[in-house]
Amino acid sequence: MGEQPHYTGRLLISCPDRPGIVAAVSGFLFAQRANIVSSHQYSSDPSGGRFFLRTEFFLPDGCDRAALAEVFAEEVADRFEMDWQLRWWGERRRTAILVSRQDHCLLDLLWRRRRGELDTDIVAVISNHPDLERETLAAGVPFHHVPVPDGGKAQAEERMLELLEGNAELLVLARYMQVLSDGFLARIGMPAINIHHSFLPAFPGAEPYRRAHERGVKLIGATAHYVTARLDDGPIIDQDVVRVDHRQGVEELERVGRDVERLVLSRAVSLHLQDRVLPDGRRTIVF
Amino acid sequence: MGEQPHYTGRLLISCPDRPGIVAAVSGFLFAQRANIVSSHQYSSDPSGGRFFLRTEFFLPDGCDRAALAEVFAEEVADRFEMDWQLRWWGERRRTAILVSRQDHCLLDLLWRRRRGELDTDIVAVISNHPDLERETLAAGVPFHHVPVPDGGKAQAEERMLELLEGNAELLVLARYMQVLSDGFLARIGMPAINIHHSFLPAFPGAEPYRRAHERGVKLIGATAHYVTARLDDGPIIDQDVVRVDHRQGVEELERVGRDVERLVLSRAVSLHLQDRVLPDGRRTIVF
Amino acid sequence: MGEQPHYTGRLLISCPDRPGIVAAVSGFLFAQRANIVSSHQYSSDPSGGRFFLRTEFFLPDGCDRAALAEVFAEEVADRFEMDWQLRWWGERRRTAILVSRQDHCLLDLLWRRRRGELDTDIVAVISNHPDLERETLAAGVPFHHVPVPDGGKAQAEERMLELLEGNAELLVLARYMQVLSDGFLARIGMPAINIHHSFLPAFPGAEPYRRAHERGVKLIGATAHYVTARLDDGPIIDQDVVRVDHRQGVEELERVGRDVERLVLSRAVSLHLQDRVLPDGRRTIVF
Amino acid sequence: MGEQPHYTGRLLISCPDRPGIVAAVSGFLFAQRANIVSSHQYSSDPSGGRFFLRTEFFLPDGCDRAALAEVFAEEVADRFEMDWQLRWWGERRRTAILVSRQDHCLLDLLWRRRRGELDTDIVAVISNHPDLERETLAAGVPFHHVPVPDGGKAQAEERMLELLEGNAELLVLARYMQVLSDGFLARIGMPAINIHHSFLPAFPGAEPYRRAHERGVKLIGATAHYVTARLDDGPIIDQDVVRVDHRQGVEELERVGRDVERLVLSRAVSLHLQDRVLPDGRRTIVF
Repeated sequence: MGEQPHYTGRLLISCPDRPGIVAAVSGFLFAQRANIVSSHQYSSDPSGGRFFLRTEFFLPDGCDRAALAEVFAEEVADRFEMDWQLRWWGERRRTAILVSRQDHCLLDLLWRRRRGELDTDIVAVISNHPDLERETLAAGVPFHHVPVPDGGKAQAEERMLELLEGNAELLVLARYMQVLSDGFLARIGMPAINIHHSFLPAFPGAEPYRRAHERGVKLIGATAHYVTARLDDGPIIDQDVVRVDHRQGVEELERVGRDVERLVLSRAVSLHLQDRVLPDGRRTIVF
Repeated sequence: MGEQPHYTGRLLISCPDRPGIVAAVSGFLFAQRANIVSSHQYSSDPSGGRFFLRTEFFLPDGCDRAALAEVFAEEVADRFEMDWQLRWWGERRRTAILVSRQDHCLLDLLWRRRRGELDTDIVAVISNHPDLERETLAAGVPFHHVPVPDGGKAQAEERMLELLEGNAELLVLARYMQVLSDGFLARIGMPAINIHHSFLPAFPGAEPYRRAHERGVKLIGATAHYVTARLDDGPIIDQDVVRVDHRQGVEELERVGRDVERLVLSRAVSLHLQDRVLPDGRRTIVF
Repeated sequence: MGEQPHYTGRLLISCPDRPGIVAAVSGFLFAQRANIVSSHQYSSDPSGGRFFLRTEFFLPDGCDRAALAEVFAEEVADRFEMDWQLRWWGERRRTAILVSRQDHCLLDLLWRRRRGELDTDIVAVISNHPDLERETLAAGVPFHHVPVPDGGKAQAEERMLELLEGNAELLVLARYMQVLSDGFLARIGMPAINIHHSFLPAFPGAEPYRRAHERGVKLIGATAHYVTARLDDGPIIDQDVVRVDHRQGVEELERVGRDVERLVLSRAVSLHLQDRVLPDGRRTIVF
Repeated sequence: MGEQPHYTGRLLISCPDRPGIVAAVSGFLFAQRANIVSSHQYSSDPSGGRFFLRTEFFLPDGCDRAALAEVFAEEVADRFEMDWQLRWWGERRRTAILVSRQDHCLLDLLWRRRRGELDTDIVAVISNHPDLERETLAAGVPFHHVPVPDGGKAQAEERMLELLEGNAELLVLARYMQVLSDGFLARIGMPAINIHHSFLPAFPGAEPYRRAHERGVKLIGATAHYVTARLDDGPIIDQDVVRVDHRQGVEELERVGRDVERLVLSRAVSLHLQDRVLPDGRRTIVF
């Protein structure tokens, strides 16, 4: 963050692993006179697995970015069947946030944005309740109240799609308590990150904190994951837990849960915006 | 532990909550000239809930212990419908351990016993495999190989019951990989503590570490609990987790899992032996 | 918190340990028809140590509170040379906050107050910089800018004393970057809680995060403590750490530091306001 | 570890950062038909900083290892002024351990060696006390009792140097309670790893656990570091902490300390033996 760029460009690659990938990529960058700032790579299995790479680099002034991308595609990417992206410093992605009534995740994201911890513009907060309008507007972010009345989910989702379309590259579900339809998820055209509580053992269904308390769990946790059609079962980005004991009532477990939820969600959104999360089927590689 | 007693007696109480319990118990102890060393209490709900108390105290020399227990029963316990126990310094409980092939939990328990961290005599190690005989004998503990051939579980459990009956007050399942029958659990006549891996989300069934790795979990955990007829679902005593990432293969996750398993199991056994774990239906109160 | 009281009164005791204290206190409460909701006690040493007790209880309607306190003093407290306090549900203490430019601790406290997590009224924010006025006023709290020019500390502290005197029962230093004089601390007449970063090893002096980074520390921590004349060395209330690694630059360590600082400070303030922190010389007992 | 090699060779590099390093190294490996298994790199600063690389790779059968090292030196290493090492699968390093009377770190290392968690041969245990001879011999490791009488340190260190010289590539101080002379450290000719307790704040000098207890610390920690002439101040390899509270006496803090010490030391030794710790002046890079 801050004023000075830590890099000019960021290259993300995912492809079938085989010898020569790093030599080809680093040879290409060297030929372009790029100076690598940081680089992480991972192979799920050197024989038959998948290779992942994330590189940040400086380029000398006056470099032709469009040409560079074209040359990379021709000389390197096609040969190795790469999924790849090239991002440039200053190309800030836009984020939209869905909330319901709980404010802890939303406020933490808005505050981190203001502190410069999240490299994004928050362009819209959409909620099925009007409660958080004042805080959203105070942070200079447009607020859209899209109620979801009984039988009105399809219409509400259409309205949300209109608000999102072309306006954001990331959707964050910051304790949005409505289930989104598969159709909505298929049409948003951007990744969505969700946060949900996690216990050992799990307590699916209603009133999880009450049931966790009744069962005497010693750890309260949260999981941030990409949203897929499989409810609460998308690729995990980050997780954390906090220790609790029998003296803490349901209310206090919920308070602890809020603390760990806002922290894990903000960390996951930050990792995503730094392109440090690469999907690998049902899991993620986090560099 | 060490040489000097930290207390003479330990009183454990569980009863329906209502006013006057603490006044009655502490008045009784004061009248006996007991000096309270430590005391913990908890009420699940002051109206209609359950009250739990654990007190350690010194008594002046020459006190008649049997008489004291009798007087307590008459004057206090019956009036408040208490479940209660009175333990005396030096009344060491005996522990038996079930293992299979994995040695990490067993060795940790044997070592802590030797260090004086566990206030118990380990009287027997029973295993369905012969692998850990040498380490067990080296610690001065009898080893019993009770194989469980196909179709031979009933007979094996009979043999184990013979070995346990009258010889132990606690059974620890230190990675015992056989499912114990409800009948066995009903007949052992002592609490049993089990350790099992815990992930977020859970991966019931075979090869949990491989599946946790495929799913990219970020936390590897373990849960120690009392064994009940509901598999892996008894009252939780302790839990912990360790953070992992995608670079760690299945083997390394298993290594991390062993570290957290042995720590959590030893902590749970230690808490139990100090009478710090009071059952409360499907959960525990840990003082 | 919430609408329903969890208790009527809260009794805090600290006195030389000797037999009979619990019997006397619980006998007194029972005689007053009090119903104990929760109770914690601790003795630093049953022979010659100090005894600490915190009890929450309900009283029947119509009880005369002033009389009860008087009777307690006469019948119990004096006999055992007790330091004691009796607090009643609804007697909310007032908190003042000192800040400089960093907003993370202040905003977290204001937000938790609004959520009902902190049982206090925040009556004033005092700062040596004007930066955080807008956020403070937005939370409905008066903001006082008290600059501390070179050579003007004595005058600034006089102004702060005027603002605090009779207006608050707790002072929180939420990243206030001026050293307070011993005279100021002696005159405020209320406890003060401070937060500061903690590393292993410690890096006293300027730019601690840069030096921690140069030294490759693996844990970033924070400590909340009562302020005494010994700088950063008062009784510890709470501490926590977060794991970091070499990839994280100074900026990112500072970000991690902010997260752990705001969490630890808010936890410490909450514990204090619930009267769960009892001083014991240079340390605290946290129930 | 296990039966199958996870790699053939492991290349470790540290050099002044400048463009082209990764291209040169990966181009070289590709030309040798090496298949990279894993690779980590880090630059302390792309302009004027230091570059670190750790790569594991497979080579086709029949490759001439000596020739490969020679070619790498000529074609790559010299050009970039690299400090480098090339290690081959199966070249197991030898470890010697210094202990005094405390057994927890020693036993953990011996057990992990037997489990195959540490890729080393433990060739000697040297102690200034005879206490741990039986456990050492039971693990099949030679035990050397080298007492350090008053005024006899120089002679004892000479004896230890004789035992170590040419016999080990790593020295582990597993709670060795004697201060080693600078001369000894200068002459051992191998890295040495030490473990020591860590508190927030630190308590240098005698009886740290007693003083930590008196001060009410909430976290008990341990730090593993390379030994340098500056006592307890060498580059940190790993650290960890465990939460404690006022109820835990000095004895129990020591027990918690042992648990965290053995875990952190074993992790640090394992990281070192996997060549995952690269020194960078007063700190380490841990891949």
